[in-house]
Amino acid sequence: MTLELPDLTPGQFNLVYNMFSFTIATMFAAFVYFVLAQKNLAPKYRVSMMVSALVVLIAGYHYFRIFGSWDAAYALEGGQYVFQDDQPFNDAYRYVDWLLTVPLLVVELVLVLGLPKGESGSLMARLGFAAALMIILGYPGEVSGDASLMGERGLWGFISTIPFVYILYVLFTELSSTIQRQSGRVAKLLSNARLLLLATWGFYPIAYMIPMFSAGYPTETPGAVVALQVGYTICDVLAKAGYGVLIYAIAKAKSEEEGFVVDEMVKPASAEA
Amino acid sequence: MTLELPDLTPGQFNLVYNMFSFTIATMFAAFVYFVLAQKNLAPKYRVSMMVSALVVLIAGYHYFRIFGSWDAAYALEGGQYVFQDDQPFNDAYRYVDWLLTVPLLVVELVLVLGLPKGESGSLMARLGFAAALMIILGYPGEVSGDASLMGERGLWGFISTIPFVYILYVLFTELSSTIQRQSGRVAKLLSNARLLLLATWGFYPIAYMIPMFSAGYPTETPGAVVALQVGYTICDVLAKAGYGVLIYAIAKAKSEEEGFVVDEMVKPASAEA
Repeated sequence: MTLELPDLTPGQFNLVYNMFSFTIATMFAAFVYFVLAQKNLAPKYRVSMMVSALVVLIAGYHYFRIFGSWDAAYALEGGQYVFQDDQPFNDAYRYVDWLLTVPLLVVELVLVLGLPKGESGSLMARLGFAAALMIILGYPGEVSGDASLMGERGLWGFISTIPFVYILYVLFTELSSTIQRQSGRVAKLLSNARLLLLATWGFYPIAYMIPMFSAGYPTETPGAVVALQVGYTICDVLAKAGYGVLIYAIAKAKSEEEGFVVDEMVKPASAEA
Repeated sequence: MTLELPDLTPGQFNLVYNMFSFTIATMFAAFVYFVLAQKNLAPKYRVSMMVSALVVLIAGYHYFRIFGSWDAAYALEGGQYVFQDDQPFNDAYRYVDWLLTVPLLVVELVLVLGLPKGESGSLMARLGFAAALMIILGYPGEVSGDASLMGERGLWGFISTIPFVYILYVLFTELSSTIQRQSGRVAKLLSNARLLLLATWGFYPIAYMIPMFSAGYPTETPGAVVALQVGYTICDVLAKAGYGVLIYAIAKAKSEEEGFVVDEMVKPASAEA
């Protein structure tokens, strides 16, 4: 899935360029934070931060590639960023990224709930499988030359919405009772994480539909191309790094409620006597 | 915000080039130090070093990019470094960097104070928000073609000074009583950190104003361009790596006062008998 792109003004080109670079820095910084912050959590919640760390590491790698592909796809000629036919922009990095990270994002949420073993495994398997299926089924529509609503893009987009609706159904019905069982503070944080997931994931199908309603997309619609890249990028930062911070807050709150106080873990030897 | 730059002498070009490289080495070395040095601190102060580590990691990444952009923007032709029109210097990396790191720098300072939870959260939120606002409001003036004092640069520069003044107000009034409550040694270190922050952050608005008073900036003022890049770089090293070392000294002093003695943490097994 390489994209032919329109020529851009320096302002348009640089906005996307700087957003990609911003995201690389954010993802790798989040990776370091999630790795280091694990030790502040009760051991049973550390694995959710491990998974959060993997997600932002994978995303950081892909943004590094996307940044390189964007940079190579354009050359500044006469004050204008001109698309280079021999260096098409590879947007498929996003699908590869999502195929790996989206199932991990639902796994994070399930892990931080700290459910009994049997329950948690089944939930992760079902949600993770649905998440992967959603990405796989969206892909044929994305690469299809036919971007119309009633054509291939519309068809595959519709089919891939089915697992998405299933995920939302599980999160907002099956998980609701589990969330209610938590303390007030944790329940509030979990609701926020679920809403952030809904708000950010909800943007992707909207973005997917842009080409259906933009005549001449992408080569004749520079504004739509820039809006789409910036939009995807903001969503990825919120859905991965921002969401990871929320998961961390949940894990921290639950650790404290269960009596894990980080300061007491490493009392000086003299104090133990 | 890509800059058209003037041609430079080899001495001018290399001064900036070597300063950038120096900064990459300093930031990544500081990152490793801040990560490793955490274990010498009482657990409650470790998070301030984690944030310090993130700041210098993010800055190291951006200097790596700035270095690459500077290098690509020039070619040595006939003993002179000639600016390449098709490879403009991307100075926007600085703003992206500041947007991420400047809020984190105030967070570091608040974290190392070790305030009660409610107090600390509100202070971090207010100062972090003001810091981000300061950067965001400065940006339109920086990218505006109108660099005059009474024009767009002057206007946005003035507006972005408002959150800066707010930050200084909080640091020098609200925080003064908190600093007074600390022991003499810690209070001295905290005052130094606050002064370093004032001195380094105070340089940025001065640098921001250089174009207002340099006719023909940047293409006709090689001296001002070199001074600005070197000045920003020295400030970043002091405000991020140097400031992080001060924060470490504060965290160490407070850890010791609170009875955390690193040597007692790792007594040989025989000593316990």
